[in-house]
Amino acid sequence: MTAPIDFYFDFSSPYGYLAAQRIEALGAAVGRAVVWRPFLLGVVFQETGSKPLNQIPLKGDYATRDFARMARRYGVPYVVPPDFPFHSVAPCRAFYSLCDQDPVAAKGLAKALYHAAFGTGRRVSKAEVVAEVAGEQGLDADAVRAALQAPAVKERLRNEVEAARAAGVFGSPFFIVEGEPFWGQDRLADLEAWIREGGW
Amino acid sequence: MTAPIDFYFDFSSPYGYLAAQRIEALGAAVGRAVVWRPFLLGVVFQETGSKPLNQIPLKGDYATRDFARMARRYGVPYVVPPDFPFHSVAPCRAFYSLCDQDPVAAKGLAKALYHAAFGTGRRVSKAEVVAEVAGEQGLDADAVRAALQAPAVKERLRNEVEAARAAGVFGSPFFIVEGEPFWGQDRLADLEAWIREGGW
Repeated sequence: MTAPIDFYFDFSSPYGYLAAQRIEALGAAVGRAVVWRPFLLGVVFQETGSKPLNQIPLKGDYATRDFARMARRYGVPYVVPPDFPFHSVAPCRAFYSLCDQDPVAAKGLAKALYHAAFGTGRRVSKAEVVAEVAGEQGLDADAVRAALQAPAVKERLRNEVEAARAAGVFGSPFFIVEGEPFWGQDRLADLEAWIREGGW
Repeated sequence: MTAPIDFYFDFSSPYGYLAAQRIEALGAAVGRAVVWRPFLLGVVFQETGSKPLNQIPLKGDYATRDFARMARRYGVPYVVPPDFPFHSVAPCRAFYSLCDQDPVAAKGLAKALYHAAFGTGRRVSKAEVVAEVAGEQGLDADAVRAALQAPAVKERLRNEVEAARAAGVFGSPFFIVEGEPFWGQDRLADLEAWIREGGW
């Protein structure tokens, strides 16, 4: 059994959204499972002294333009959510409340939440919207709403954020396979080549 | 006549070095001239509040690893110069002292300076090393040494740095074609696709 690809992302990351459209096809093409691992980029930014791309002079203007143009390149719908950059605690907790019992449903919910935010501009930072999106996915909206405040789920997210930080994750999206890190949706081709070629 | 590709880079940038190996082939493939425009990234960093990649927690470790592995991927020799990250005023001035009269020689000197720094670990921040490398390229080492202190050359570099900043350049390498910006050696494929496909 070959090692999976760990896919780290923040739900508020446009580049994470773009990567989420392509990573499963990449994993299938190279025969690797993909483990989705949402985390809170803001916590890591406290360590690196970074901040959301769109708030940095010069780089912010570029990023705003690049998000939209790369979405066009890949034929993916893209809008800037009204609360962008938003807090992604609620969607993260919803994901981790499901992922152990039903990883397929959790991944489906993650995709639906990303689409809700960046495909249609809904405020997935809000617990009520997360529950709504879960319901639309055929999940139990009430159960998801309750899970957002469950101590075990809160603890799970804290542990996942710490694990991401400990693994050296400092951006979104971020991929690790066999200990090899790749940062950015623009590194998917490198990730694929690294796996196919057995490293460089 | 189609618009050229402006190629902005700092001589102290490993990713700029990697891009310098590939940009001319890309330009030839899409029928575009490439205008090499070295600048001083440190001046731009004062505006964006950024600093050299290798000095940022987490991201620095990643970058150090990534520089070397991407060089291996592309089959390019790579060492970390002893003075890295180094001041690149001298190599920039040498380039601009030549580029109007002899753009081919200036481009050849830029490639040789990049190779001296990242291919063999020489200290190209030093005027004497820049003059040596120029001599090895068949240029007049004394003339280059003198040009490094010429007021007109100093002024030219100041103007080029300001032009880069005004064009929104905030990293190295950075490419602009027909007003469309691309940041990073990992965006060369996007740059090529954008030109071939007439934008997105």
